Amino acid sequence: MPTETTDAAAETTDIILDCDPGHDDVVALLLALGSPRIRVLAVTTVAGNQTLEKVTANALGTLALAGAEDVAVHAGCDRPLARELRVAADIHGESGIDGVTLPAPTREPREEHAVDRIIAEVMDRPAGTVTLVPTGPLTNIAAAVRREPRLVERVREVVLMGGACRGGNVTPAAEFNIHVDPEAADVVFRQDWPLTMVGLDATHQAIADEQVVAACGGLGTAVGSAMADLLGAFRRNYRDVQGLVGAPLHDACTIAELIEPGLLQTVAAPVAVELQGEHTTGMTVADLRPQAPSDGTTRVALGLDRDRFWTILLDALARL
Amino acid sequence: MPTETTDAAAETTDIILDCDPGHDDVVALLLALGSPRIRVLAVTTVAGNQTLEKVTANALGTLALAGAEDVAVHAGCDRPLARELRVAADIHGESGIDGVTLPAPTREPREEHAVDRIIAEVMDRPAGTVTLVPTGPLTNIAAAVRREPRLVERVREVVLMGGACRGGNVTPAAEFNIHVDPEAADVVFRQDWPLTMVGLDATHQAIADEQVVAACGGLGTAVGSAMADLLGAFRRNYRDVQGLVGAPLHDACTIAELIEPGLLQTVAAPVAVELQGEHTTGMTVADLRPQAPSDGTTRVALGLDRDRFWTILLDALARL
Amino acid sequence: MPTETTDAAAETTDIILDCDPGHDDVVALLLALGSPRIRVLAVTTVAGNQTLEKVTANALGTLALAGAEDVAVHAGCDRPLARELRVAADIHGESGIDGVTLPAPTREPREEHAVDRIIAEVMDRPAGTVTLVPTGPLTNIAAAVRREPRLVERVREVVLMGGACRGGNVTPAAEFNIHVDPEAADVVFRQDWPLTMVGLDATHQAIADEQVVAACGGLGTAVGSAMADLLGAFRRNYRDVQGLVGAPLHDACTIAELIEPGLLQTVAAPVAVELQGEHTTGMTVADLRPQAPSDGTTRVALGLDRDRFWTILLDALARL
Amino acid sequence: MPTETTDAAAETTDIILDCDPGHDDVVALLLALGSPRIRVLAVTTVAGNQTLEKVTANALGTLALAGAEDVAVHAGCDRPLARELRVAADIHGESGIDGVTLPAPTREPREEHAVDRIIAEVMDRPAGTVTLVPTGPLTNIAAAVRREPRLVERVREVVLMGGACRGGNVTPAAEFNIHVDPEAADVVFRQDWPLTMVGLDATHQAIADEQVVAACGGLGTAVGSAMADLLGAFRRNYRDVQGLVGAPLHDACTIAELIEPGLLQTVAAPVAVELQGEHTTGMTVADLRPQAPSDGTTRVALGLDRDRFWTILLDALARL
Repeated sequence: MPTETTDAAAETTDIILDCDPGHDDVVALLLALGSPRIRVLAVTTVAGNQTLEKVTANALGTLALAGAEDVAVHAGCDRPLARELRVAADIHGESGIDGVTLPAPTREPREEHAVDRIIAEVMDRPAGTVTLVPTGPLTNIAAAVRREPRLVERVREVVLMGGACRGGNVTPAAEFNIHVDPEAADVVFRQDWPLTMVGLDATHQAIADEQVVAACGGLGTAVGSAMADLLGAFRRNYRDVQGLVGAPLHDACTIAELIEPGLLQTVAAPVAVELQGEHTTGMTVADLRPQAPSDGTTRVALGLDRDRFWTILLDALARL
Repeated sequence: MPTETTDAAAETTDIILDCDPGHDDVVALLLALGSPRIRVLAVTTVAGNQTLEKVTANALGTLALAGAEDVAVHAGCDRPLARELRVAADIHGESGIDGVTLPAPTREPREEHAVDRIIAEVMDRPAGTVTLVPTGPLTNIAAAVRREPRLVERVREVVLMGGACRGGNVTPAAEFNIHVDPEAADVVFRQDWPLTMVGLDATHQAIADEQVVAACGGLGTAVGSAMADLLGAFRRNYRDVQGLVGAPLHDACTIAELIEPGLLQTVAAPVAVELQGEHTTGMTVADLRPQAPSDGTTRVALGLDRDRFWTILLDALARL
Repeated sequence: MPTETTDAAAETTDIILDCDPGHDDVVALLLALGSPRIRVLAVTTVAGNQTLEKVTANALGTLALAGAEDVAVHAGCDRPLARELRVAADIHGESGIDGVTLPAPTREPREEHAVDRIIAEVMDRPAGTVTLVPTGPLTNIAAAVRREPRLVERVREVVLMGGACRGGNVTPAAEFNIHVDPEAADVVFRQDWPLTMVGLDATHQAIADEQVVAACGGLGTAVGSAMADLLGAFRRNYRDVQGLVGAPLHDACTIAELIEPGLLQTVAAPVAVELQGEHTTGMTVADLRPQAPSDGTTRVALGLDRDRFWTILLDALARL
Repeated sequence: MPTETTDAAAETTDIILDCDPGHDDVVALLLALGSPRIRVLAVTTVAGNQTLEKVTANALGTLALAGAEDVAVHAGCDRPLARELRVAADIHGESGIDGVTLPAPTREPREEHAVDRIIAEVMDRPAGTVTLVPTGPLTNIAAAVRREPRLVERVREVVLMGGACRGGNVTPAAEFNIHVDPEAADVVFRQDWPLTMVGLDATHQAIADEQVVAACGGLGTAVGSAMADLLGAFRRNYRDVQGLVGAPLHDACTIAELIEPGLLQTVAAPVAVELQGEHTTGMTVADLRPQAPSDGTTRVALGLDRDRFWTILLDALARL
């Protein structure tokens, strides 16, 4: 119906997906492409789950799979702001998406650097219209905000996957994305912009089990089939490396929240990034005490409506 | 029946209570004195909730209240191993037990230093018979184990109140006892002895509400009346300072577990103490990940059987 | 004579001066402009001694003073990579060059960001021909090398003012430039390029006394007069703030070494930047022990031929 | 002459030598025993250059060599306050004094712990009469001052070997004694007592060369012969491990200064001990800047009258 179509268009969220695919980045990207509520202005890549070259190829391959070759891809920083790069080959394999074969991309990433593209995209569009969705280390975002501090007041919000309040994954206290580039995370968390941290406390509730794999396979599409392969491989790695019963689709939780705000249970809380600990470097230290002063702009996701998450995901995949 | 009496005697646990009273230390001490399952070999004191002088006076006053003037009190370290002392006057007041008046003690602490007494008590008794119950900063215990490393193999176990896995109290990440003397905690946690960490994850489930206060008052004894006063004052402070709805009886959880093993839900997990973090110093970093290697000797309490806790506590208080 | 002219041209060193003027940056820039042995490809600016806006204006004013308005100025990073900016207003005043009045610049800095200009300048010229001379915090250089890692093999060398082996200035252990942005310094020192650290151990031997001030004044030129004013003010600040008997012309030592290689006494030594110390953050930890393994690319200046330094400086100033 | 004898007696300095022999501790002890200006109240030992057992045996052997079997030896802490013990077997060998054979001691150390003895010795004698001379890690001293804070006002002064302002030995920035137990050093340096830090800046000027070895051998005594052996072995180790041309007699510099005050050139300077640095842990950060506020009680030795040092040493050895 015309009215509905108009409404839906009015509610479209414009995002830049800054990612390091990575199995769950692929899912996040497919979810964004499959949803009529999300418009992907650009995909920017950053070294993290694998090297910059590999994650950029994976982003291009995912767009080819989804038939979205008009979405621009810009490669960004090939290592953290201040530390050496450590990739997550144990979880994501040598290719970054081991176990899944994507179509060979027919194009190259754009010439322009991701950091420049992020700045131009935000500064050239109306204020308050662009949402940044980082699902890898925060190197590009920190570099962009250092280069152009006015980004902070111009973006609509930042919804990022990273961090953990109650136990990490790469270390007992730290989550991978933050641990890889804690100085960049520190820059991003210190800015005075609306920021939602979607960390392990929420994403460990989005664990793909056999039923999800089967439902993907049952879509009868190239995308569904690739998803089934991807989730199967991702589940094996998580079981072997982290002892989990399934694969948490961390990155997709950010997009799902943008599609259906309120899907995540969040609380306002100040978050500091530990840069110096012997056992805690890269930890996101959220102050969840009752008396904690809220800084007013940062929210932390602690829960997820699982049923709605899977419905949203399968619904979007079915459109591709 | 004789047999039962013998059994009960056989199951008595000999403890040294190393404490810094402190409202909840007082409750822990009364609980230990009131239970036939616990024998208090000595009370040793350490600076923490208040200065050494004050907490020692409070320990003597508590023993006077309970009519247990035969239990020896030994004062120990008056400040942390390596840092300056910060007391918890916001929570415990100037006296360390603001809001409660104890009988004036009729005696002094013993001449012998707490560290020497702990060593002598453990080394002079049969191996495996003495349980250390620290409910304050771990300064005395660390100093004792540095002075006499054979303590480690001679004690039965260490059941300590301190630490937190999922959010601290004095800082977003750290609990008071560990934060005050993290170097001492580091020494204690590194030893290869059976150790149970009873931290905020469990003790925040032992929150005294109005019913508990009323039940204490209803005992109709001097102890019950003092308890009611104490809990009333303690609840007010926690509400004003930490925004809690009641007062967590942290320290008493250690004794309750010794009275009724299994009262706490615990998991085996390695624990490291952060000494260097900007935001995390004094945090107990437990590795609760599924794949974490257990070091075999450290257990962390994550839960508490609340109903049993209050039953045990009121039962013991009624005996005094 | 033709031959000499040819020789002199062959020996010209092409530099990018990355600076934060700052009294001694002004001297460094004048020294470079006045020497036939140095060609300034570009002046890039970075927040440090004062805000980016102020130091950029000071760079433009210095070029106007020297009649070198053809040299391009590019503004760079307005704050450190990962920390908040702290300026040195105590030493350099509110303007960054208090006590000296420069001609009003008749132009703006170029549109292009300093980091982009540094990359383009190095990548577009023949390999091994461009020398980077950073005399402020290393933010621009670190950002450039992160953005374009091939810089490392393409520059001729890096000769930087910063650091100290035997006592700092802003803290007991750290020198200002490194202390302001230690993460950037860490990036720069970790690269495998020929790097000479010209720190306080050498620059505290280049202290301008009354004779130098008088010699500048005696030049009878606008430059000489401005220099005399500048040194007079700089000396007063150093005396009042750091208790020194004169003003050390830190930054000019880098240019002087390029004009006359060997002017500095240097040793090969590995240098690490401390990022985590309570008392030592921003310290350059050089391993000067006899048995230290050299990393082969880093040299540390420990001394200076003072007489030659002043001769070189006054000779260059006389040409402007 | 009677008068002289009386004067000399009046000027005797009573010391407790707290040491970890260690070649240069042996020299320090012999120097103290051989000088009429020094009275050794007790020798206390601490783990450092080697394990507590070994360094205690070496102290007893040295006293046997010197015929001073009446001087009491008390063993102290067998590991640092908060860290694991690392010994200096590369420099001092498996025995702690490799290359020298001491007479087998005919006695055991006293039963009383070193920390208790230090406290009793200081508290039982008149205030201001006992000088503490630590030449190993500061574990015993820190433990004593924590146990009995009144030590601080009762000792005459502390003259310790440890630390370095301008480059370390075990790390680029840290000296061995401080690096082994930085938390203990932090406690000792924070006390408000007269303290002289005799670090590498001074002790690296007391390097025993071949002439010194020959002079010792030429004494024609058992002590002289043992000294020649000791110095020969010590010089070989320093040459092989640290690339020095001879062996610095670090510890003996403390005693020499007490024998002849002013032998060392010292400056008043605040000193902080770095506990958290990645590259600087265990560094003594002295504030030697002209404007540094002096705390009034700490002095740092930066130089040594070499000729007097050797004269004093050989003179004392000749008396044994």
